[in-house]
Amino acid sequence: MQNITRIIGIDPGLRRTGWGIIDALGNSLKFVASGTVTSDGDMDLASRLCQLHDGLADVVHSYKPDEAAVEQTFVNKDAVATLKLGQARGVVMLVPARAGLPVAEYAPNAVKKAVIGVGHGEKQQIHMMLKILMPKATFKGNDAADALAIAICHAHNRGGARLRLAAAAG
Amino acid sequence: MQNITRIIGIDPGLRRTGWGIIDALGNSLKFVASGTVTSDGDMDLASRLCQLHDGLADVVHSYKPDEAAVEQTFVNKDAVATLKLGQARGVVMLVPARAGLPVAEYAPNAVKKAVIGVGHGEKQQIHMMLKILMPKATFKGNDAADALAIAICHAHNRGGARLRLAAAAG
Repeated sequence: MQNITRIIGIDPGLRRTGWGIIDALGNSLKFVASGTVTSDGDMDLASRLCQLHDGLADVVHSYKPDEAAVEQTFVNKDAVATLKLGQARGVVMLVPARAGLPVAEYAPNAVKKAVIGVGHGEKQQIHMMLKILMPKATFKGNDAADALAIAICHAHNRGGARLRLAAAAG
Repeated sequence: MQNITRIIGIDPGLRRTGWGIIDALGNSLKFVASGTVTSDGDMDLASRLCQLHDGLADVVHSYKPDEAAVEQTFVNKDAVATLKLGQARGVVMLVPARAGLPVAEYAPNAVKKAVIGVGHGEKQQIHMMLKILMPKATFKGNDAADALAIAICHAHNRGGARLRLAAAAG
């Protein structure tokens, strides 16, 4: 008898943080909800971080996921952008951790591989595959779609981790 | 009749976040407390961010500062280090903001200028000037000393901002 595991995937960003929630039961994945938490670009940084925190805490409180997964940030040469994203990402990882959830991290190419089978691809391919994997999924925009892809990636990889553990124990 | 303003200065870091609290009454500054919140390098990132959050939230809860000041992060070419610091900084700014405090940001050279009179200088000069400005100050290590310097910088600059506002209104 397997238990359903509810997973929240999160795609962090200071302006827009996408989130997507799925229920995983063995190999079966069921769409639950998705959305975007935004912060107001006219406000100061501390207030914007509060907006992200409160928005995401509401989602965690409402849907009560069991595990969280966050995309590893692509570090690029734009140090100012990296810092900005890092600040949002710190808050985004804090919310599920404070709620007692384990928080896994996945590289962007691992997320793409889990959804479209290869480590590179267009946003449009991710959208299409999400619709095939979970026909009832609804998502507005790339952030929510990416977040769902991260949740799916975690559903695949956590299962693998369990099987490996069982094999080692057997 | 002026009111005392209690200021917390914070020097963010994933491994060690320094904090320093002073009371400002006009030009008079009084040392209240200082310390360091640390996270365990052996734990996963989300858990470490929780440790920073909880440690700093305890400090804010215990000392009940009115305003917060955080050093602006020095963005360098090491993108991985910038990202790591950004994540810690996001959490460090969130804590006072969620407690309802205004959170000011100051560039490192502004902090040095407020304490040692010029925008560059050695750590040792900051330690020495802290002892002159606030003879009763105690601090262990650079992080707590830097945090006190940030609080002093804010005490100077918030006064200036108030005076400019008063002049404009007059």
